[in-house]
Amino acid sequence: MPKVVGIIGGMGPLATVDLMKKVVSYTPATKDQDHIHVIADSFSQIPDRTTAILGKGIDPSPYMIQSAQRLEKAGADFLVIACNTAHFFFEAVKESVRIPILHMPVETAKYLKENHLKKIGLLATDGTINTKLYQHSCQNFDIEVLEPDKVIQKEVMEGIYAIKGGKAAKGFLSLSTVANKLIEEGAEAIIAGCTEIPLVLKSSDEMIIIDPTEILAKTIIKTANEASNRIQLV
Amino acid sequence: MPKVVGIIGGMGPLATVDLMKKVVSYTPATKDQDHIHVIADSFSQIPDRTTAILGKGIDPSPYMIQSAQRLEKAGADFLVIACNTAHFFFEAVKESVRIPILHMPVETAKYLKENHLKKIGLLATDGTINTKLYQHSCQNFDIEVLEPDKVIQKEVMEGIYAIKGGKAAKGFLSLSTVANKLIEEGAEAIIAGCTEIPLVLKSSDEMIIIDPTEILAKTIIKTANEASNRIQLV
Repeated sequence: MPKVVGIIGGMGPLATVDLMKKVVSYTPATKDQDHIHVIADSFSQIPDRTTAILGKGIDPSPYMIQSAQRLEKAGADFLVIACNTAHFFFEAVKESVRIPILHMPVETAKYLKENHLKKIGLLATDGTINTKLYQHSCQNFDIEVLEPDKVIQKEVMEGIYAIKGGKAAKGFLSLSTVANKLIEEGAEAIIAGCTEIPLVLKSSDEMIIIDPTEILAKTIIKTANEASNRIQLV
Repeated sequence: MPKVVGIIGGMGPLATVDLMKKVVSYTPATKDQDHIHVIADSFSQIPDRTTAILGKGIDPSPYMIQSAQRLEKAGADFLVIACNTAHFFFEAVKESVRIPILHMPVETAKYLKENHLKKIGLLATDGTINTKLYQHSCQNFDIEVLEPDKVIQKEVMEGIYAIKGGKAAKGFLSLSTVANKLIEEGAEAIIAGCTEIPLVLKSSDEMIIIDPTEILAKTIIKTANEASNRIQLV
């Protein structure tokens, strides 16, 4: 029996849908029953992560904990967080449940290491950049992270909020401009380090886009199919 | 506070993703927090509905009841079932919980009536056709339903299972052929009466496709924003 995955989601809701879709599409299946059991809590009311990290908004961690505990109670064997920035609150959420949580930036860094990448550009929210989530995860695997300077970072944020607001074309323009700058500075690939970014920015001949959501989806499938620790009650 | 919707899903998993995506896209929103709280139980292990209705497979209703109760316990204020055929088991599921469940074929029939449609073609699984889910829902609103004859219905099933197996092009070919036949017989529009069908078959100049998932998504948003009956505990 594959394990049940719980998704702490709604940050934003489209990113949750995107993760679920990727889990389905990377699962080898010929019928419904071949797919894994996913419980997604698209809890959009979780307050904005970036605003909170910058000290200007409500702390989202009690909401994330509520979601994690809801999923654990509903039968999830392990959890994931479908938002990069929200990983700033990872430890608090982890301590609130008895089941494991996969860490998206750590899983991404492992993937980069396996693929021998050494210098990587980072597109992410101010929150993710400032908290150094990817920088720390990558450091542990000897990977250097290039980030946009403060002026250019504004363009990244505009791009991300454009996508959240449904303006994909505007989002693409902002983000691809910044990505190109990081490639010129020597990045071998670009981490799309906010779940909204890969919705518009894809790998091309000019640029490799690393999509942490894709990496997380594949890790979910692998983890779900590992021997379950959960005692099966008959 | 908008109500929380619980989706009994995984029948198939892509149809659940499709419904969630439609709920997001039809919600007027400029930020994450404008979206409604959705808890989706993508419980793919629910046995095949059509096989069961035809008397050749395991009864899915205990699994659907398990999912409904899981969602109720997790805090859902109302439920939906993201699979047309599964509505055959609607009453059993409804009786197992204390919260209301929206009925997709009934919501679709209401929509057809509002749009003054009187003769409609039905593309659906053998299970949905045989159980007369749409025929009964439409009868109550004086709408005539044209269904494919038994030979042509085989092509519909092949199309649906092609989509479930990831073969969208093959699915489109089978389903559009049958839809054209029903239009020739006088149907004013076609109900895409299995959640997999609108994934490949869209409205065009030649044909209006009625997508019950789209109608359900809009009804979810409307229902979620109605004054909540749930007592708010502080």
